[in-house]
Amino acid sequence: MVSFASDYIAGAHPLVLRRLMETNLEPLPGYGEDPYCAGAKEKIRAACGCPQAQVELLTGGTQTNQIVISTLLRDYQGVVAAKTGHVSTHEAGAIEYAGHKVLELPQRDGKLDAEVLEEFVRGFYADENHEHMVFPGMVYISHPTEFGTLYTKAELEGLSRVCRKYDMPLYLDGARLGYGLMSREAELTLEDIARLCHVFYIGGTKVGALCGEAVVFTGHNRPAHFVNAVKKRGALLAKGRLLGVQFDALFTDGLYFELSRRAIETAEELKTILREKGVAFYLESPTNQQFVILDDQRAEELKKQVAFSFWEKRGPNQTVARFCTSWSTTREDLELLRSVL
Amino acid sequence: MVSFASDYIAGAHPLVLRRLMETNLEPLPGYGEDPYCAGAKEKIRAACGCPQAQVELLTGGTQTNQIVISTLLRDYQGVVAAKTGHVSTHEAGAIEYAGHKVLELPQRDGKLDAEVLEEFVRGFYADENHEHMVFPGMVYISHPTEFGTLYTKAELEGLSRVCRKYDMPLYLDGARLGYGLMSREAELTLEDIARLCHVFYIGGTKVGALCGEAVVFTGHNRPAHFVNAVKKRGALLAKGRLLGVQFDALFTDGLYFELSRRAIETAEELKTILREKGVAFYLESPTNQQFVILDDQRAEELKKQVAFSFWEKRGPNQTVARFCTSWSTTREDLELLRSVL
Amino acid sequence: MVSFASDYIAGAHPLVLRRLMETNLEPLPGYGEDPYCAGAKEKIRAACGCPQAQVELLTGGTQTNQIVISTLLRDYQGVVAAKTGHVSTHEAGAIEYAGHKVLELPQRDGKLDAEVLEEFVRGFYADENHEHMVFPGMVYISHPTEFGTLYTKAELEGLSRVCRKYDMPLYLDGARLGYGLMSREAELTLEDIARLCHVFYIGGTKVGALCGEAVVFTGHNRPAHFVNAVKKRGALLAKGRLLGVQFDALFTDGLYFELSRRAIETAEELKTILREKGVAFYLESPTNQQFVILDDQRAEELKKQVAFSFWEKRGPNQTVARFCTSWSTTREDLELLRSVL
Amino acid sequence: MVSFASDYIAGAHPLVLRRLMETNLEPLPGYGEDPYCAGAKEKIRAACGCPQAQVELLTGGTQTNQIVISTLLRDYQGVVAAKTGHVSTHEAGAIEYAGHKVLELPQRDGKLDAEVLEEFVRGFYADENHEHMVFPGMVYISHPTEFGTLYTKAELEGLSRVCRKYDMPLYLDGARLGYGLMSREAELTLEDIARLCHVFYIGGTKVGALCGEAVVFTGHNRPAHFVNAVKKRGALLAKGRLLGVQFDALFTDGLYFELSRRAIETAEELKTILREKGVAFYLESPTNQQFVILDDQRAEELKKQVAFSFWEKRGPNQTVARFCTSWSTTREDLELLRSVL
Repeated sequence: MVSFASDYIAGAHPLVLRRLMETNLEPLPGYGEDPYCAGAKEKIRAACGCPQAQVELLTGGTQTNQIVISTLLRDYQGVVAAKTGHVSTHEAGAIEYAGHKVLELPQRDGKLDAEVLEEFVRGFYADENHEHMVFPGMVYISHPTEFGTLYTKAELEGLSRVCRKYDMPLYLDGARLGYGLMSREAELTLEDIARLCHVFYIGGTKVGALCGEAVVFTGHNRPAHFVNAVKKRGALLAKGRLLGVQFDALFTDGLYFELSRRAIETAEELKTILREKGVAFYLESPTNQQFVILDDQRAEELKKQVAFSFWEKRGPNQTVARFCTSWSTTREDLELLRSVL
Repeated sequence: MVSFASDYIAGAHPLVLRRLMETNLEPLPGYGEDPYCAGAKEKIRAACGCPQAQVELLTGGTQTNQIVISTLLRDYQGVVAAKTGHVSTHEAGAIEYAGHKVLELPQRDGKLDAEVLEEFVRGFYADENHEHMVFPGMVYISHPTEFGTLYTKAELEGLSRVCRKYDMPLYLDGARLGYGLMSREAELTLEDIARLCHVFYIGGTKVGALCGEAVVFTGHNRPAHFVNAVKKRGALLAKGRLLGVQFDALFTDGLYFELSRRAIETAEELKTILREKGVAFYLESPTNQQFVILDDQRAEELKKQVAFSFWEKRGPNQTVARFCTSWSTTREDLELLRSVL
Repeated sequence: MVSFASDYIAGAHPLVLRRLMETNLEPLPGYGEDPYCAGAKEKIRAACGCPQAQVELLTGGTQTNQIVISTLLRDYQGVVAAKTGHVSTHEAGAIEYAGHKVLELPQRDGKLDAEVLEEFVRGFYADENHEHMVFPGMVYISHPTEFGTLYTKAELEGLSRVCRKYDMPLYLDGARLGYGLMSREAELTLEDIARLCHVFYIGGTKVGALCGEAVVFTGHNRPAHFVNAVKKRGALLAKGRLLGVQFDALFTDGLYFELSRRAIETAEELKTILREKGVAFYLESPTNQQFVILDDQRAEELKKQVAFSFWEKRGPNQTVARFCTSWSTTREDLELLRSVL
Repeated sequence: MVSFASDYIAGAHPLVLRRLMETNLEPLPGYGEDPYCAGAKEKIRAACGCPQAQVELLTGGTQTNQIVISTLLRDYQGVVAAKTGHVSTHEAGAIEYAGHKVLELPQRDGKLDAEVLEEFVRGFYADENHEHMVFPGMVYISHPTEFGTLYTKAELEGLSRVCRKYDMPLYLDGARLGYGLMSREAELTLEDIARLCHVFYIGGTKVGALCGEAVVFTGHNRPAHFVNAVKKRGALLAKGRLLGVQFDALFTDGLYFELSRRAIETAEELKTILREKGVAFYLESPTNQQFVILDDQRAEELKKQVAFSFWEKRGPNQTVARFCTSWSTTREDLELLRSVL
């Protein structure tokens, strides 16, 4: 059985795991105070071209969204997100658990539009007459989005402009950031993102690590006593080295980008195979997630030999399915898919 | 520099790490749905002699306390704990973050007393006239305690009896459970604990794992939709295999107990060395944490060559210090300490 | 200046206030333990034709929604509501503050549709495969709705059927319930509502009281230790008599219904006047809130002599305005409006 | 039956109620935007000698504590209080509900000591090494305390000095403030309190109002968007006039102080009667709450004709009982007590 079910089906990239082994017996302080965490942060700052950035390492994506959003929002504020945003739909209410509303806006291909955003927030900032409504206090986007799509440079600049105008932090969820950066259609570099966003995270879990996400606060805007806030949310890892060593490895010699590039290559090949076999695409995705439309019967057949994700029903007889590649996808996987199709 | 600073200064036990490597490239489902999680749970059930137990794997100790306590408590209830309990003092308010009060009771050597407990809870259950107070809804203890001490069998039976009488879950924090089980003074076995507690956790982070705690619900009392609750708290690990493989390794061929036993051996040797060198003990601990009293000057000197934990000031010129052993403590570490002292 | 700005522009109905005066110096126990609270609850049970109902008196509407919803929902659940529901839009995030998501569904004239509801919830109850999503645990509707519209008997029966099928409490926000019951188009009686809903509240603040809402749990489903939960949320009134005396007065000799009927009469006359004067209606409302479309200029003019609510902008030159009547609206108020228009 | 059970056994002072009647039919805006609220706030500012104060009117004491504390604390902070403080013991966990720990310190006669406070907080502000503990972010006291005792001027100055030194808001719960101000032993005036505290509240519920507490932020430190925060917590009263009119009446012609003075007079007479009758005092209280020790049998007898509060058991045969006076206590009440005793 070959699997395209997700981009977290394998463990860590072998080079990452090797570094965990090599450092395993070194006695190190806990809670992220070790030199590998320090090194990882320094390398991430350099990769972002943002020497003043404050970098924090956390364990998972929903955890990261919950912590970043709930520590940056003020009491009376909520976070604006696309109706299809991960925080809106697939985090089991983690933002609400932290006491804040997700203010859901319409989206296009998973993306939030600067004009739609400004139209929504303008009134709140124009007058004080919204005391019974949740005030939009920051903006959440993901890149790539939940549909694998990418913001253009102009689009992100537009959102950034609106956010700066109203002094709302712009937060970019980069659970799959590597795949967004290395896409053939990528317009945005890591430096661009560090320049245009107030905070974002570089996903490790889906790009080569066993676990781990690196949050980058780009403007000296890390909330005070951040470690307390992380601990209070049950999210402070005792052996912070687990995160430090992995991100140190990922940001040594460009491994993070190289991993991502390979997943894009296999994704492009996947697209070619799917197209050749007459499979219809649900939308155009330039990254490692591909959404296709399958007749229910074909989906049932395929499932016996290939693992993929059910996305949603589409009409009475069709299914939207998701196929993912990752750094662990091999030529053999692709050939097997081709032969099965 | 040799370190007795904590029992989480090293990575994972080599056998645990080896299993992570061996399984690394297998494509597996996420979120704990993989066969290693299933295997680990089965082995833990067997080790507990509790075939009906529901086992859940989480990442860290504070996270585990927060999730177990906040999902088992009802809205109007709080959790009873010793004033020195971990949830009372060292979790940055994680229980309160989840909306519940920690009802702090006096302790002796870090332990909660059954009579003190019953005295406190009796009134709440006797009448309804406590509507302005937080109702004691469950009981939290740790074993070993924060001071490395152990409950006797009679003591735990006493607490268990009170808890059953008033239908309050008894929850045992086993962050260092292995060291408690393998102590030379241990009266309680894993089976005893499974029989006497409604829920407890078997600590991995401090006993050989990179991270991970295994929660055991002993009486079909796992809260409904537990995975949702974990996800909602940002605590659901995408690559659940990281926890599954580690606990599977720890509970294969008794590794967890063997690791723990070795830490106890080195702890006993540590005690001998400290005693020989005329160091006074703050209290008697039969497990891997040793608390001693040092003159401030001696502490300062020692610190240059040996890492240990500052616990608290004691009078104007003395310091209480903590020395820990773990599975990673070596004879060389102990010899070095001896020579420095 | 005459005011149609809201239905809470006046104090209490004179008969209500008189009872507060008459009972003022009686020494009474606090926290709702007084005989007036008991009497009010008994009268409400009788009015609802629901002798087993558990009635609780709270101070305000948002408070009531927050308490009822957060005590009935389980940890992993959210509340389903129309996108225009009061809890979705105008409570400043009170439900999210309590840790739960409002699951917003499309609406028609402010109403939730049984088919839309079932379509949404079916999947959640069909399988367990929704662990990353917020589970729909109860349903919130308002009657009259935020647009003054009313559910027909068939519509409420439809919602009730879906809710019973999936064992989700159906909760009806009756902030303006009196006006809904006495509308000329009303199909639903108080008995019907008590029969079809698991819990609802009878609004006092907007129907003759200084403050106060009476929550009716119709099926012995009041959460355990409800007083604790109310106290914990800062909502337990020390002088519960303030609520008891008022509701006792409102449910003596049908005052609540009589008050409401008079507001409907003035609302009907208001509609006639507005129609005569060529004012366009935004929608058809059979209750005490009337939504009309005004040219911005006319609105500006009118504002100088008549108070009303701005609802929303409509295109470049028009405004949707809300005019409310209540028990305190007089013939003189209406004549004045007529002459100004 | 005569009642000394509490200081909230009666409704409102007749002058307060009269003003509610006189203003009852005036059409007024909601949510505290009416001129009576404005007038009340202005009069309170004047009474406090604090023209820059920001005054907010809320409904009840626990609600007020919950809102003030949870909006002033930062995410990682808790509130320091005496172990016997109202927020520590009798608010059903309202502070924890809002996500914050109450850091309980030892007390003397219900009072917090400046030295004890400084000893506790010093370490937190000295270094950053407390990331696993709840940071003390503000200080809560009550005046009079839960035991009816009063802070001296020197004591409050001491606490104020420590709070300013560490930049922690000092918050004074004045649920019974009037009785503290008019006590014969009072050293502190309203001006002193406004000068020494960052925020405090003037209790209405227990001093002549049906409900209502006036929060005074003395240093332009009202949290931003305070109305949103109040609404979000379900605490925004639609008919804010109910609070405005009452506080306007209480602060017209010194009614608040006059009411309080009368309760002190009756309390002094109560003390004389109790002393004459050989009743032992549990502690010395110079305000309207008197705590006495009764043999259980005498308590049982007395209960048949006089209502008072059970405070706690004291040894096997004695009871601590609380007797309260208030503005509504009459000479007849006292004579009746005398004759019964």
